[in-house]
Amino acid sequence: MTDKNSILIDLRFDREAVLRALPNAFPGRDVIDMGDPANRERDLSDVAYAVVWKPDPDLFRRATGLKAIFSGGAGVDHILTTYELPDLPIIRFVDRSLTDRMSEWVVWQCLHHLRNGFAYAIQQRTRIWSEIADQPEACDVTVGVMGLGVLGADAAAKLKVMGFRVIGWSRSKKEIAGIETFDAAGQDEFLSRTDILVGLLPLTDETRGIYDRPLFSRLSRSGALGGPVFLNAGRGGSQNQPDLIACLADGTLKAASLDVFTVEPLDQESPLWGMDNVVVTPHAAASSDVRALFRHVEEQVGRLESGKPPQFVVDKILGY
Amino acid sequence: MTDKNSILIDLRFDREAVLRALPNAFPGRDVIDMGDPANRERDLSDVAYAVVWKPDPDLFRRATGLKAIFSGGAGVDHILTTYELPDLPIIRFVDRSLTDRMSEWVVWQCLHHLRNGFAYAIQQRTRIWSEIADQPEACDVTVGVMGLGVLGADAAAKLKVMGFRVIGWSRSKKEIAGIETFDAAGQDEFLSRTDILVGLLPLTDETRGIYDRPLFSRLSRSGALGGPVFLNAGRGGSQNQPDLIACLADGTLKAASLDVFTVEPLDQESPLWGMDNVVVTPHAAASSDVRALFRHVEEQVGRLESGKPPQFVVDKILGY
Repeated sequence: MTDKNSILIDLRFDREAVLRALPNAFPGRDVIDMGDPANRERDLSDVAYAVVWKPDPDLFRRATGLKAIFSGGAGVDHILTTYELPDLPIIRFVDRSLTDRMSEWVVWQCLHHLRNGFAYAIQQRTRIWSEIADQPEACDVTVGVMGLGVLGADAAAKLKVMGFRVIGWSRSKKEIAGIETFDAAGQDEFLSRTDILVGLLPLTDETRGIYDRPLFSRLSRSGALGGPVFLNAGRGGSQNQPDLIACLADGTLKAASLDVFTVEPLDQESPLWGMDNVVVTPHAAASSDVRALFRHVEEQVGRLESGKPPQFVVDKILGY
Repeated sequence: MTDKNSILIDLRFDREAVLRALPNAFPGRDVIDMGDPANRERDLSDVAYAVVWKPDPDLFRRATGLKAIFSGGAGVDHILTTYELPDLPIIRFVDRSLTDRMSEWVVWQCLHHLRNGFAYAIQQRTRIWSEIADQPEACDVTVGVMGLGVLGADAAAKLKVMGFRVIGWSRSKKEIAGIETFDAAGQDEFLSRTDILVGLLPLTDETRGIYDRPLFSRLSRSGALGGPVFLNAGRGGSQNQPDLIACLADGTLKAASLDVFTVEPLDQESPLWGMDNVVVTPHAAASSDVRALFRHVEEQVGRLESGKPPQFVVDKILGY
């Protein structure tokens, strides 16, 4: 036992990645790794901080001395919507690495749709040399980013550098330099101007199933891509998946890139896998780098222990 | 006949695109469209300016009164290496649209290779939900841009915004803010640090076949992608295509994205079409927007006629 507060780790992540990141992550602290079977029955009443991703449901009953809970990812719906939580600060994972990775995926997929990635892949398979006529450029296309937290703001800025017209939407109005933004009252105008909708919303009671047929039907149909495109890299629970599949089949949506699904892993039988206008990635857009997560936790614990307020504290009413 | 100098158009482009762009492109000027059969035998001795892409070989013998030649694209090898040209200024096509489109393609393909685009497409086809371990992020990967003209400099800047480490190479040293650059003498160091090589060189006697096995063998093999990747969106004549194919087959190169080929269209029998580590696009990375081309020509003609030096004049000795 050291004189520093102890930290508990309960991360349903790739086990090897956790084991690689643990040594020396928390100098001078006792670390209780719940992935180690030896800790299964351990008394947890002396633990001060918990770093969790989809933790054991019993955890918060056993760790009665907790002072703060750290989410292993940007989202906190994995604990807010599932557990009875003690009244403690919950701290989101915000990290340059996580943000940059998410923007890589978003820009990659927007360029894929802009530059006719599906059509050129088919032409390559069938050995057809034919330039697709009337290729729009990025400045002909409006990307609408829903969700303007750290991730949405970074993606919006990078899409703009790539030449896209970018607009943003969030429940309450956000000001972002150089980006026209809308709030709840402006949702109609936001959607009617959007050619590519990028979903980066947190999952809350208000956003559950928000991406549905009525919403998709309000997207711009007069844009240079010939129909609206939907990207979701936020949370699968925000999409009405039957509506999404039907809209992709009937042309209400031209195409989609999906990293998240209502149930993960995505069901082997889901038609989304086989649709020729859909990109599926396995919730891999922006995985938490475990080393970066532990650095972030150690830094925020340092703030708590020196009496400073921690950053990135979740508003439990809003849910993010 | 008007009092303004006349302009001749001989563009081996999509005919519809040329016809759509021609009306009102050159107000007050006679325009001789060589795509119109009625002009086949016309006297061209009074024509002052020619806008050409792979023009009729007879053209420069017939148009004896030319004052300047405009290339329909960024490259001028299509006329410099093929025709006996009169001693006149040759003006390259430089345009925001052309530059932005090229950077779209380059960033798209760099992200495709960074984010395991090939592997995830296979997993989608086979309905496998599996996150690829140890996903590097852009800042773990060095992109080396060969050719630092307008196109190379813009691509380098945008790749840097996306988080990549970016270095640049050109025959003679170029200074680009925020990018480490190398010249002929620094080629070894440039190549040894490059994980993704982006070819944006003009085609000249010095660059013909420059992308060959000896060059590919000098690229970094210790990078986060597990092997060097080659992109070519410059000129097909710069690549030794048999070497390229062999290096992609034996692992000297991990993968490639190719928009240009030594002979275009790419031969139906070329193994490049079917290689599972190669993206083929049909010289479509940055097509000249014909309207933008005509705006650029009218602007440069205006400079010539008001006694100002035109911009973007080709150095015929260097070949670009």
